Amino acid sequence: MSIESRLAELGLELPPAPKPVGNYSAAVCAGDLLFISGQFSVVNCGLRYTGRLGAELSETEGYAAARAAALNVLAQIHAALRGFERLDKLARVEGHVASAPGWNNAPRVLDGASDLFVAVLGERGWHTRTAFTPASLPLNFAVELAVTAHIKPQP
Amino acid sequence: MSIESRLAELGLELPPAPKPVGNYSAAVCAGDLLFISGQFSVVNCGLRYTGRLGAELSETEGYAAARAAALNVLAQIHAALRGFERLDKLARVEGHVASAPGWNNAPRVLDGASDLFVAVLGERGWHTRTAFTPASLPLNFAVELAVTAHIKPQP
Amino acid sequence: MSIESRLAELGLELPPAPKPVGNYSAAVCAGDLLFISGQFSVVNCGLRYTGRLGAELSETEGYAAARAAALNVLAQIHAALRGFERLDKLARVEGHVASAPGWNNAPRVLDGASDLFVAVLGERGWHTRTAFTPASLPLNFAVELAVTAHIKPQP
Repeated sequence: MSIESRLAELGLELPPAPKPVGNYSAAVCAGDLLFISGQFSVVNCGLRYTGRLGAELSETEGYAAARAAALNVLAQIHAALRGFERLDKLARVEGHVASAPGWNNAPRVLDGASDLFVAVLGERGWHTRTAFTPASLPLNFAVELAVTAHIKPQP
Repeated sequence: MSIESRLAELGLELPPAPKPVGNYSAAVCAGDLLFISGQFSVVNCGLRYTGRLGAELSETEGYAAARAAALNVLAQIHAALRGFERLDKLARVEGHVASAPGWNNAPRVLDGASDLFVAVLGERGWHTRTAFTPASLPLNFAVELAVTAHIKPQP
Repeated sequence: MSIESRLAELGLELPPAPKPVGNYSAAVCAGDLLFISGQFSVVNCGLRYTGRLGAELSETEGYAAARAAALNVLAQIHAALRGFERLDKLARVEGHVASAPGWNNAPRVLDGASDLFVAVLGERGWHTRTAFTPASLPLNFAVELAVTAHIKPQP
């Protein structure tokens, strides 16, 4: 089954790939790696998940925030590679969760991203994960994901 | 001398490679790189170094915490590559040290990891390092390491 | 125009590449990637930009701090590759900006680095960017940059 069919089956639609907010690129291919700029917890350029886990946001909201950021990562991959054919696999996912003092359940929140990657990409969605719990993120976002993927050579 | 002999000589034993705490992989090979999920300051799945430098932990404890996380990194490499033969060299080590306000001696603490890598791996243990001092880390750990290594082609 | 001429045209001089402050390397080549250790906001080993945006530092100072760190990145690339010929392109720039609670204009500050990379390296200076706003950075620095570049094979 194609990635696009699987997205449809899951009732998901790729949002437009978010544009950079400065003098840089959303994605860069370097050899067999695709580097993707930090993606935030914003739904289809509209609803923004902002604030901290353990204070302004519940863990259920945090899970949804991580899932929204992961969907933006998929949109960037799709835009950079003009589809998913050239994606070999995700390699590294860094998950940053804005956290109030004393809250430390980042793994539960970041599964919102990991579950989506595995559901949509199957085998190709398996990834390493590194979790962080900073006191805040840029623009007050709740979740930021930095992803590096492995790609196949251009045909 | 093999890496295994050097570990023995230093009186070190590789712990079991820590299992992921979510829907992701402990390590992923992508081309000639090995990405390793964030490793924490836990000794052989038992004693956990938690808390912040400059508050709950001394710098001596921080050094030991970084060393413990580094040993977990070695365990992940060994598990992923079924030994150390295919390891060409470490490339990038990110060291995150939970820090109380005003404390900023991360280099001294992270040498606990760097010293171990160089002692065990010799030339192959040299690495770039990037230090961070967040207010907290997931699960209240004192140190987290994110490592990328360069590997040799499969024979 | 060579990178060196462009630097001169912009009135810039490469500082000496800052030395590591621990048991690690300033830069490591791994396959076609060049990993560079975290570079800080220090001008030519002298003036240090320290403190937090939104408290001790203005955004104009933050922009200059990011630019200073970016110039150190260029110095490391130049030292590691003995010039800029082998640099294919920057791939990933992580920008960490020490931030007081409530301040969240990291993109504006990090453009200090991005603008410099693009001005000096032209096409080769385009990069992905991932922004972070920790409460503090090692040694109280205002900005830290972690850069990965793509390099051409050795001739």
